[in-house]
Amino acid sequence: MHRVRAWTRVARLCSVEYHGAWKRGLSQTAAASRLDLSGIYPPIATPFTAKEDVDYEKLEENLQKYAEIPFKGLILQGSFRDQTDWFQTEKLFLSFRFLTFVGVFFPATRATLRLTEKMAAAGADAVLVVNPCFYKGKMDSRALIHHFSKVADSSPVPVVLYSVPANTGLELPLDAVVELAQHPNILGLKDSGGDITRIGLIVHRTKAQDFQVLAGSAGFLMAAYCVGAVGGVCALANVLGQELCELERLCQSGHWGAAKVLQQRLIEPNAAVTRKLGVPALKQAMEWFGYHGGACRSPLRPLTEAETQQLRRDFSTNGWL
Amino acid sequence: MHRVRAWTRVARLCSVEYHGAWKRGLSQTAAASRLDLSGIYPPIATPFTAKEDVDYEKLEENLQKYAEIPFKGLILQGSFRDQTDWFQTEKLFLSFRFLTFVGVFFPATRATLRLTEKMAAAGADAVLVVNPCFYKGKMDSRALIHHFSKVADSSPVPVVLYSVPANTGLELPLDAVVELAQHPNILGLKDSGGDITRIGLIVHRTKAQDFQVLAGSAGFLMAAYCVGAVGGVCALANVLGQELCELERLCQSGHWGAAKVLQQRLIEPNAAVTRKLGVPALKQAMEWFGYHGGACRSPLRPLTEAETQQLRRDFSTNGWL
Amino acid sequence: MHRVRAWTRVARLCSVEYHGAWKRGLSQTAAASRLDLSGIYPPIATPFTAKEDVDYEKLEENLQKYAEIPFKGLILQGSFRDQTDWFQTEKLFLSFRFLTFVGVFFPATRATLRLTEKMAAAGADAVLVVNPCFYKGKMDSRALIHHFSKVADSSPVPVVLYSVPANTGLELPLDAVVELAQHPNILGLKDSGGDITRIGLIVHRTKAQDFQVLAGSAGFLMAAYCVGAVGGVCALANVLGQELCELERLCQSGHWGAAKVLQQRLIEPNAAVTRKLGVPALKQAMEWFGYHGGACRSPLRPLTEAETQQLRRDFSTNGWL
Amino acid sequence: MHRVRAWTRVARLCSVEYHGAWKRGLSQTAAASRLDLSGIYPPIATPFTAKEDVDYEKLEENLQKYAEIPFKGLILQGSFRDQTDWFQTEKLFLSFRFLTFVGVFFPATRATLRLTEKMAAAGADAVLVVNPCFYKGKMDSRALIHHFSKVADSSPVPVVLYSVPANTGLELPLDAVVELAQHPNILGLKDSGGDITRIGLIVHRTKAQDFQVLAGSAGFLMAAYCVGAVGGVCALANVLGQELCELERLCQSGHWGAAKVLQQRLIEPNAAVTRKLGVPALKQAMEWFGYHGGACRSPLRPLTEAETQQLRRDFSTNGWL
Repeated sequence: MHRVRAWTRVARLCSVEYHGAWKRGLSQTAAASRLDLSGIYPPIATPFTAKEDVDYEKLEENLQKYAEIPFKGLILQGSFRDQTDWFQTEKLFLSFRFLTFVGVFFPATRATLRLTEKMAAAGADAVLVVNPCFYKGKMDSRALIHHFSKVADSSPVPVVLYSVPANTGLELPLDAVVELAQHPNILGLKDSGGDITRIGLIVHRTKAQDFQVLAGSAGFLMAAYCVGAVGGVCALANVLGQELCELERLCQSGHWGAAKVLQQRLIEPNAAVTRKLGVPALKQAMEWFGYHGGACRSPLRPLTEAETQQLRRDFSTNGWL
Repeated sequence: MHRVRAWTRVARLCSVEYHGAWKRGLSQTAAASRLDLSGIYPPIATPFTAKEDVDYEKLEENLQKYAEIPFKGLILQGSFRDQTDWFQTEKLFLSFRFLTFVGVFFPATRATLRLTEKMAAAGADAVLVVNPCFYKGKMDSRALIHHFSKVADSSPVPVVLYSVPANTGLELPLDAVVELAQHPNILGLKDSGGDITRIGLIVHRTKAQDFQVLAGSAGFLMAAYCVGAVGGVCALANVLGQELCELERLCQSGHWGAAKVLQQRLIEPNAAVTRKLGVPALKQAMEWFGYHGGACRSPLRPLTEAETQQLRRDFSTNGWL
Repeated sequence: MHRVRAWTRVARLCSVEYHGAWKRGLSQTAAASRLDLSGIYPPIATPFTAKEDVDYEKLEENLQKYAEIPFKGLILQGSFRDQTDWFQTEKLFLSFRFLTFVGVFFPATRATLRLTEKMAAAGADAVLVVNPCFYKGKMDSRALIHHFSKVADSSPVPVVLYSVPANTGLELPLDAVVELAQHPNILGLKDSGGDITRIGLIVHRTKAQDFQVLAGSAGFLMAAYCVGAVGGVCALANVLGQELCELERLCQSGHWGAAKVLQQRLIEPNAAVTRKLGVPALKQAMEWFGYHGGACRSPLRPLTEAETQQLRRDFSTNGWL
Repeated sequence: MHRVRAWTRVARLCSVEYHGAWKRGLSQTAAASRLDLSGIYPPIATPFTAKEDVDYEKLEENLQKYAEIPFKGLILQGSFRDQTDWFQTEKLFLSFRFLTFVGVFFPATRATLRLTEKMAAAGADAVLVVNPCFYKGKMDSRALIHHFSKVADSSPVPVVLYSVPANTGLELPLDAVVELAQHPNILGLKDSGGDITRIGLIVHRTKAQDFQVLAGSAGFLMAAYCVGAVGGVCALANVLGQELCELERLCQSGHWGAAKVLQQRLIEPNAAVTRKLGVPALKQAMEWFGYHGGACRSPLRPLTEAETQQLRRDFSTNGWL
């Protein structure tokens, strides 16, 4: 629990400053620039009961195990959780005082803003804001810069942009990211697209702003470190959290040879629990590794027997099972 | 107001039957098969005030004008309206007793179900349910059939499927549509993809179920009638509603030559207010044609001057302005 | 053989005029405008021997059978045939004196031009020219208008544009089509994309130029007639040619009810021999219907047993087998 | 000219062995495994005259300058060069005796084979074979493995696979690459897709076969080295060849900090001459850096003035102009 206590202090410090800097100004800017995002974050998978309710007991047991792993923080409230769930989860998480993010997936600017404020009030240290995507044809850089600027203007905690084209069908344009990086309350970007050229260019073009890029997947985590990212938000961290923190350590300390070997062993398990088999596979793998995955919520379906075997192979052929 | 009164009766009849058939059974099936979807529906564009609140007075004035047009019904609650808005809109619409649909855009099955029930209780005659799309990779036919079946099993009013790949990035697969067409509480499909081959095939493969297909855009309305669709849900109906009802009449009565001339004059205005310039153009055009379009909600941006001119050209070169 | 003789005369007339109008001028324009494209065209599938050589005997037998069907003409030289093959095929086709098109798939303008001239010299009545697509990012309207204009400026026979996004990954932009329609040596467009809204708009915006649009697939043939197309180039015509000509007759004479029934029965067989199972299925179905399909050329692979059964079902459930 | 002579020896050695190993067997396998692909290769841009003929004099001057740069070899015959051009180019290149590759873009297996043999006879040390892509729907792993295996079975020189989804619309599937890596005459893969996760996984899953992966673009060259690639085929090498060889040296020697700085300065110029402005920009930039770019061939169009300025900025803001 040593590292947990350290984060607790960081989180408290931040909280005080943010609340005091509710209105835009130098102090908030300073606060924002002080929040160091570097490190590994699991986006917490929520265990459900058979009736699809959140299983808070099992969630708590998972969190107690995660407290032993040197994560930098947790990502709470996946993009589509019910609001009612959040208010219970929140208490749980605050008792742990992890550094927390909050995913926001509302499409209208003002609905996004309201949720952002609610989450900040509930103790979030930063909000991870995905781009609106329903009216894809109208979501050009002009509209997206307007949207994120308005959210960041009013958000009581720093904003981290979130681009996840596989889910939204829309990549946050590079020029919009570069312009938004100048906003004092926008700290960084979680990029799940995996276009490493783009990540390198974003780091390059925002270096004057100390803009922090997080890889959105364990599949390209080492490559992202190579080109200047500072960490990762990785679904796989729910399963192999210790190993991802080790990969972070190897990259940060320049042990690229060992990093390469470890990274390559993580690609297939990562693909299995993300783009190949998705959330149901993540939950199944969590069970194998001593966590509570629990049931999936409809419309996600449980794995078939063949998929379960494939999943097992993706872990076992890389030496994890 | 002649026709409005007629719809009122239809709507009332339906309502009584639905409420009496809350539990699954023969009576509900009969009710469902009795709901005739054929005709034109405008998906109601909501006028906002400068502060982005719903402008109920202007909305009411629009509705009074729409009551003079032989629409079959209205589509309320666009995919992304706040719930709070709905409860005020609802009273307004019930005072008109139009035949109403309700768009549902929640991703989880049980959240969709809850909203469906809420909307039915508020007087909706049917619910228009879009496919979940966030976890695109996992939304195969198996998952989608499961999702829509569960929703239709419990929905107190009939369900109309809604496929809109331009927004969701996912087309409801043809085999899923064909299988779901056999569900007694699934009435039809609004298809906005515009693949006319697919629409023809869906009509062909579901003819034993009397499955009703609505074109999701005025751009391919006549072609959809040609291959067996029974009506259309058309954004352009907010602007040129009378003309779309005339196109319907020409198609239904087999005046294909006149239909072709009218259809072709509608394609460019339709493209302008949908895929080319989108909602802000729809609202601008509504103002030109005597309705209240009002402001757009962020992140949608107002038209630029150049876009406004282009929009005007798309209407004027086809003889509408 | 009655109709064949009629085409022969048409073809001869055209040939004389084209050869006399080699240089750009009024006479060629007149000739071009005289070439009536309306009707059904099979893109001839080439039977190969087991060693992947063209089987000319079997090809000839197919052509003799096609001569009994009221096709308007044939499309020769699929996009990827060897040049050496062409020179033998040519003699064969000229002995039939069908109205012929020639597919051209060379990417560079001058290579396209050379092939166009060669094909015209070999007797083609028009050339069907697909858009270059390798450098997709650079193939904007400006480049494509330049390309097709240069080809049409020099081609001794009229040019028909060809847009087939499923294969090229690039749709010939609508504005480019509308501008190119004004070129006196560009007669029309074969559109295989199936976007019926686009087809209707192209007809509408080019009506002053008497621009002729051909549907590129039997799946949307009737819908295309509805919005103003004049015919179709349909792979399925290699198998069900008589039926497609009957569908043409029903559409041309305004028997839309009967047309709809026939059209719907053709969609699944058409999908089977095109986007679902492709060329190998087309060749298998040809065998079932009394033509010589022959082997496929690598890299195309023969159908699996399961695919063959699926193909049979797609024909039999619609009453064709 | 020191290094040139060294390559000459390598190339000669290879040639002898290949010609002696025309038939499949151990000796060819040994030869194949001996060909070390590691290093940087420019895909040679061909200068054209105003009349779009190859300007051999200018090409020769370029090659003399490239001989001073420590490239590992050259890629000749871009995907779309006329065959007639090749036979002149060939003599030129053989006089330099660079290690050469040959791009092959023919869609049918047997046409690919014929060209492969022709190129090997002309002195190519290996052939770079892109996947067929016209019948996208049928080009599954089964078909592609069959195609490449047949080509590799007969090719007198080793084969390098080439996946370039931006141009072909089709990514060579990972499982096909892994299976083909076991073929004794398939040496490696040029991957232009830029999916670094995929590249890492390919390296990982083929390490028993000593399969060599080349990055297909300077944009992700360093990241590719990080995950195990051995070199790069980079259009930008026509302009900044020395700098790319320096980046290679930094990566190979583990100077990741300096590599990162250099890599980031190369991303924008690289994007400018590839996906942003393409071949016309590459040729313009070549002129600025002392090479002969020459005219573009239609349908490629020269840069507009605005594009030229943008290109200049992309080089100058990164300190190259």
